[in-house]
Amino acid sequence: MSKKLNVGLIGCGFMGRTHSNAHRKVNNFFDLEYQPVLKAICDCNGGKAAAFAKTWGFESVETDWKALLARKDIDLVDICLPNNLHKEVAIAAAKAGKMIICEKPLARDGQEGAAMVKAIEKAGVPNLVSYNYRRIPAVTLAKQLIDEGKLGRIFHYRAKFLQDWTISKDLPQGGDGLWRLDVKVAGSGVTGDLLAHCIDTALWLNGSMTTVNAMTETFIKERKHQLTGKVEKVGIDDACAFLARFQNGSLATFESTRYARGHKALYTFEINGEHASIAWDLHDLHRLQYFEHRDEGRLRGWRSIHVTDGDHPYMDKWWVPGLQIGYEHSFVHQLADFIQGLQTNKPAGPTFRDALETQYVCDAVLKSAKTGRWEKVRHCGPKP
Amino acid sequence: MSKKLNVGLIGCGFMGRTHSNAHRKVNNFFDLEYQPVLKAICDCNGGKAAAFAKTWGFESVETDWKALLARKDIDLVDICLPNNLHKEVAIAAAKAGKMIICEKPLARDGQEGAAMVKAIEKAGVPNLVSYNYRRIPAVTLAKQLIDEGKLGRIFHYRAKFLQDWTISKDLPQGGDGLWRLDVKVAGSGVTGDLLAHCIDTALWLNGSMTTVNAMTETFIKERKHQLTGKVEKVGIDDACAFLARFQNGSLATFESTRYARGHKALYTFEINGEHASIAWDLHDLHRLQYFEHRDEGRLRGWRSIHVTDGDHPYMDKWWVPGLQIGYEHSFVHQLADFIQGLQTNKPAGPTFRDALETQYVCDAVLKSAKTGRWEKVRHCGPKP
Amino acid sequence: MSKKLNVGLIGCGFMGRTHSNAHRKVNNFFDLEYQPVLKAICDCNGGKAAAFAKTWGFESVETDWKALLARKDIDLVDICLPNNLHKEVAIAAAKAGKMIICEKPLARDGQEGAAMVKAIEKAGVPNLVSYNYRRIPAVTLAKQLIDEGKLGRIFHYRAKFLQDWTISKDLPQGGDGLWRLDVKVAGSGVTGDLLAHCIDTALWLNGSMTTVNAMTETFIKERKHQLTGKVEKVGIDDACAFLARFQNGSLATFESTRYARGHKALYTFEINGEHASIAWDLHDLHRLQYFEHRDEGRLRGWRSIHVTDGDHPYMDKWWVPGLQIGYEHSFVHQLADFIQGLQTNKPAGPTFRDALETQYVCDAVLKSAKTGRWEKVRHCGPKP
Amino acid sequence: MSKKLNVGLIGCGFMGRTHSNAHRKVNNFFDLEYQPVLKAICDCNGGKAAAFAKTWGFESVETDWKALLARKDIDLVDICLPNNLHKEVAIAAAKAGKMIICEKPLARDGQEGAAMVKAIEKAGVPNLVSYNYRRIPAVTLAKQLIDEGKLGRIFHYRAKFLQDWTISKDLPQGGDGLWRLDVKVAGSGVTGDLLAHCIDTALWLNGSMTTVNAMTETFIKERKHQLTGKVEKVGIDDACAFLARFQNGSLATFESTRYARGHKALYTFEINGEHASIAWDLHDLHRLQYFEHRDEGRLRGWRSIHVTDGDHPYMDKWWVPGLQIGYEHSFVHQLADFIQGLQTNKPAGPTFRDALETQYVCDAVLKSAKTGRWEKVRHCGPKP
Repeated sequence: MSKKLNVGLIGCGFMGRTHSNAHRKVNNFFDLEYQPVLKAICDCNGGKAAAFAKTWGFESVETDWKALLARKDIDLVDICLPNNLHKEVAIAAAKAGKMIICEKPLARDGQEGAAMVKAIEKAGVPNLVSYNYRRIPAVTLAKQLIDEGKLGRIFHYRAKFLQDWTISKDLPQGGDGLWRLDVKVAGSGVTGDLLAHCIDTALWLNGSMTTVNAMTETFIKERKHQLTGKVEKVGIDDACAFLARFQNGSLATFESTRYARGHKALYTFEINGEHASIAWDLHDLHRLQYFEHRDEGRLRGWRSIHVTDGDHPYMDKWWVPGLQIGYEHSFVHQLADFIQGLQTNKPAGPTFRDALETQYVCDAVLKSAKTGRWEKVRHCGPKP
Repeated sequence: MSKKLNVGLIGCGFMGRTHSNAHRKVNNFFDLEYQPVLKAICDCNGGKAAAFAKTWGFESVETDWKALLARKDIDLVDICLPNNLHKEVAIAAAKAGKMIICEKPLARDGQEGAAMVKAIEKAGVPNLVSYNYRRIPAVTLAKQLIDEGKLGRIFHYRAKFLQDWTISKDLPQGGDGLWRLDVKVAGSGVTGDLLAHCIDTALWLNGSMTTVNAMTETFIKERKHQLTGKVEKVGIDDACAFLARFQNGSLATFESTRYARGHKALYTFEINGEHASIAWDLHDLHRLQYFEHRDEGRLRGWRSIHVTDGDHPYMDKWWVPGLQIGYEHSFVHQLADFIQGLQTNKPAGPTFRDALETQYVCDAVLKSAKTGRWEKVRHCGPKP
Repeated sequence: MSKKLNVGLIGCGFMGRTHSNAHRKVNNFFDLEYQPVLKAICDCNGGKAAAFAKTWGFESVETDWKALLARKDIDLVDICLPNNLHKEVAIAAAKAGKMIICEKPLARDGQEGAAMVKAIEKAGVPNLVSYNYRRIPAVTLAKQLIDEGKLGRIFHYRAKFLQDWTISKDLPQGGDGLWRLDVKVAGSGVTGDLLAHCIDTALWLNGSMTTVNAMTETFIKERKHQLTGKVEKVGIDDACAFLARFQNGSLATFESTRYARGHKALYTFEINGEHASIAWDLHDLHRLQYFEHRDEGRLRGWRSIHVTDGDHPYMDKWWVPGLQIGYEHSFVHQLADFIQGLQTNKPAGPTFRDALETQYVCDAVLKSAKTGRWEKVRHCGPKP
Repeated sequence: MSKKLNVGLIGCGFMGRTHSNAHRKVNNFFDLEYQPVLKAICDCNGGKAAAFAKTWGFESVETDWKALLARKDIDLVDICLPNNLHKEVAIAAAKAGKMIICEKPLARDGQEGAAMVKAIEKAGVPNLVSYNYRRIPAVTLAKQLIDEGKLGRIFHYRAKFLQDWTISKDLPQGGDGLWRLDVKVAGSGVTGDLLAHCIDTALWLNGSMTTVNAMTETFIKERKHQLTGKVEKVGIDDACAFLARFQNGSLATFESTRYARGHKALYTFEINGEHASIAWDLHDLHRLQYFEHRDEGRLRGWRSIHVTDGDHPYMDKWWVPGLQIGYEHSFVHQLADFIQGLQTNKPAGPTFRDALETQYVCDAVLKSAKTGRWEKVRHCGPKP
């Protein structure tokens, strides 16, 4: 870790914390040529930024992201801002020649995303969108098994992401901590926030999606807005479910909601192949369920694999077999992979371009929810 | 059990066995005025019928169902035939003034079903369609909780029924044991066979469905037909998934397939309400999962209720707390309820009319799979 | 099933019901030469016996077991009486030349049991003790796997049987439904009632036990006696735990209690071998947990085998894959095996002699709980 | 975090890593007056120490622990050494007036431990033994519930710690990474390594233990020693199980082994009380199982509490509800509690004295395994 990688991180919210933690920890566990240095934290709220800097050990504080981008001592800009700011900041960062890590979703919609991809690729800067669940070891193991052909022909994919934190009518929308409920800031509700995760994983594991057919619902039609103080129409989708077809011929169902009582962050997926099936659940993220049809008949059963052994993805870096890691570690793995991508010139995904593909699926989903028809998914294709 | 209820059962397949078992056992466990007597078994294959009679203790054998219906000593006709024969036999039985229990689905489609309902109601005979899963104690408990309002406003319903027994290309279609793969006999594939169960439970638990949007797939396009010996086009749906909206404002997803490796008969449903959620799984049918938001915050969790206590539905009739019953018991409960309906003049459901409602949902699902649009569900409404 | 097997069953309690159900059902599912006929039910309470006869279809009623034994038309005596009556009735039945099925435990202690074995073997009558859990398909599958050597050298065996139904101080002891709490009738508490099951399974699966070291406790020291109406000292063990060593070098722990809040009938066992491990749980009796170390490293995990397939023990007799059977079916299997033993002259176990071995372990356990030392287990050995 | 807490850590093994990680992270998540500073790492292997310093950011390197203790700039000595070195180093550190955190077990036996307690208490330095599992949020929640009286009278406690990493005969003993198999270094096998954890938790949750009755086994009698290169007798216990009685009248079973195929680090405990029961499992450490008998009868069931909410112990410091933390976090919590103990003058446990109590239980267990009798547990009692 002889080379310094000077990080300027923008945004002091929940995601600012997960990314800061990753920057601080990655060299303790991964043997890398680069060492992230917490050079600057930026937030329009100066007091918040200063406190954050103290807690996490950032060397300096900025309150204007343009000032941050103008600094010569920043190599990597880490965007942990609400969705509506991704486009402007990312394009400016690209023009300033900075490497970029951007929180998901890439943007509020495909149009914004396409502009970002164009700018980033023109600038030729390393880039990554933080769909962190790819780097949960159990999910990475699923990817290995699929790529090795263990499942054979895929028939079914199903995913859901269920939460229950917005059921109360008294919860306001907008402003601090609640911008995800404000459609102007978030772009959409569960589609961009939660289904985007499901879609990213699905495209990674199961390839390209061709058509979708969706429904959305907003259960609570009006909520007080924190910024205006007025009761305003809720513009986001509280729930979204859709049917889909993949290029490989498999069928899929996707569902997300913030009104599923009893589930905090229940992201699950299951894939059924000719020879084997796989299932995973974020609430027990250290386990992969695996069914192998080629096992002896009497002894076939879903295996609950405790993904904590040294031969499991990433796990040789941590503790000893049987001891769990958690949510935050996915960001450490992501950063390690990003850095290894720099070292090897084989960029880690999902790049902005990969994330645009997810954005196009979201667009098709939201369109279908309006038209009531099957909608084709637009594709950006590989980098030309 | 002073009154005899003379049963004529038609069909010696898997369902003939489950029904025969129920007739033989019901009085051992339930205190009823009527006692089913296994008067006659009927199957066009006389040898099969004779063997079946010996195994199950039927007093006589018929090879022509019309002859059975003509007998004066038969009170109740129990139809355990393939779907394509339900209509003709049921209507004739009604005309002969027999009580009728009919295996699900009611018919191959709504048109057949409507004719059956008309005939049955004209004849005024007691009738029941065997959607047996309503009578799994855990499912009946779910019904109690919903009816008591424990869940509050319902936001989501999701159900699936996953199997894996038709993945092999070498499996033929049609004929003995495989008529469910022959569209002319079955009417449809997983929709009428498996989703019909999910829909019946859903209508019972969550009320009327208004619109649906579906996709179907036939993964193996041609299979050898057992009767013709030729490779023929497969007409059934191997898989079907649909989105739905209920009259109570809740959203739903349904899915069924016979290509989900690792699942034999995984019928699951989950209901998310404002105050509580419920989930159930046929593979562990003696458990109900229950989440109660009004529990103390720190101690909220999904409760795995072992539905084997004396205060659970039907369970005071069986063994002692902690000891499981199984699949076949749902048919015993159904029969007990049917007989109690006779005694109290409050017919147990689902009646033919109730089952027609399920048939109409299936029709809308299959239509939507063709049109690619949302389709309205037709309703027969309550008995006029 | 051309030959009639005339059954005289003694005792109308819970076990009388499970045995009657087995006699009534066995020929519906198993192809056997013999057909049990419910010839006579016997209970000292005549009214109870008459009602039981009506419910279950017994042809006649006796109120004196000696009268029953004197009848020429009885082939098989099925003893479903409290423990204190096993010895006298069984020995008399043997002298009368009857086949005998006896509920577990064999007797109140080894001395009684030895006398019974002597008499039964002298008479040369077919005999079986109803340790029914051997015939849960998942448990039988475990036996197959061990006998095939899949586990290799065995290191550990652990079993427990936890209940919670006697925690209330207000529960009386003795008399109807509660004789298990009366030491004079039961012989002991959880040791003879629950641990006897665990020990029978363990001896069957893991071979002979050599030494034990136990502790017992009676949490509620006095309870009202239902027969005397007086508060009397409680003589049974409410809880018992013991360490053990098996002849094969493996170590074991056993525990049973009726004071484990939250468990109705949680009988679990686990066996750890060099190459594989097995675990089972009565609360989900249709599943076997299996860990195979020879699986590929990354993909090792406990397999949850849904023991409902056609190649699982007994399961080809029942329904279709994925559909559970329950507790009562173990008695049907036991009876089928007993009858097949008659047909083949290879008696099904556990015979009275096998059950005496279990009794000797119980004796050693109860002795050790008094001496505070390791006690050797007495062995009766194979039939001379 | 205005005050610096200069840390000198001794030992670069697995535990050196977990402690270093805690020192680095604690201020990112906990608002504390003290900030640990990684002042010096000490290991007799200088190259190893230097590499460790680079990875973790220690400011300096020592190869002689006496030199470390002599430094004025060290406030806290963190002992991550094999068991045989705990006594000498800890006593010297106490004499040098350093605060001490010591890895568990306190020592190889109670005699060593008593000497340590005497020295530490004479010096009056803050001290803690790293029984980290107390600080898993689910375990801390269990402690809260018990202390609040939610369980009522306790009847049963059962714990086990199962591993499978020493089954191979080819595994050597002694030396780097394998000192836990060398009795001279470790003092004992699973008793001091694994059961010590179970005992610490049990004493904390369930109070004082009075008597024990144990068995131990060494399955592989001889192994090659890494340091001598010779095949030597194995002196440690490969497995240990014991019965115990607590002062509160409850009964207990404890078991540990490294020969339980299929379990990497399966530490589980269960407590059965009059009103409620609790169970926990290290393999799913973020869940607590809770059964509440006072729930409505029909709806009683084991609750699977996902201990990730803001009102769960420690969890307000981490991410958002539903997102797991893992093993390493228990060390961060422990350090935060240690520091808060400094701030409030209410020392966090387990202190050396608390840990001596665990050591005395281990002594009684190992003695009983030799004598074959019940042995009384010695008590050190509270600090005089």
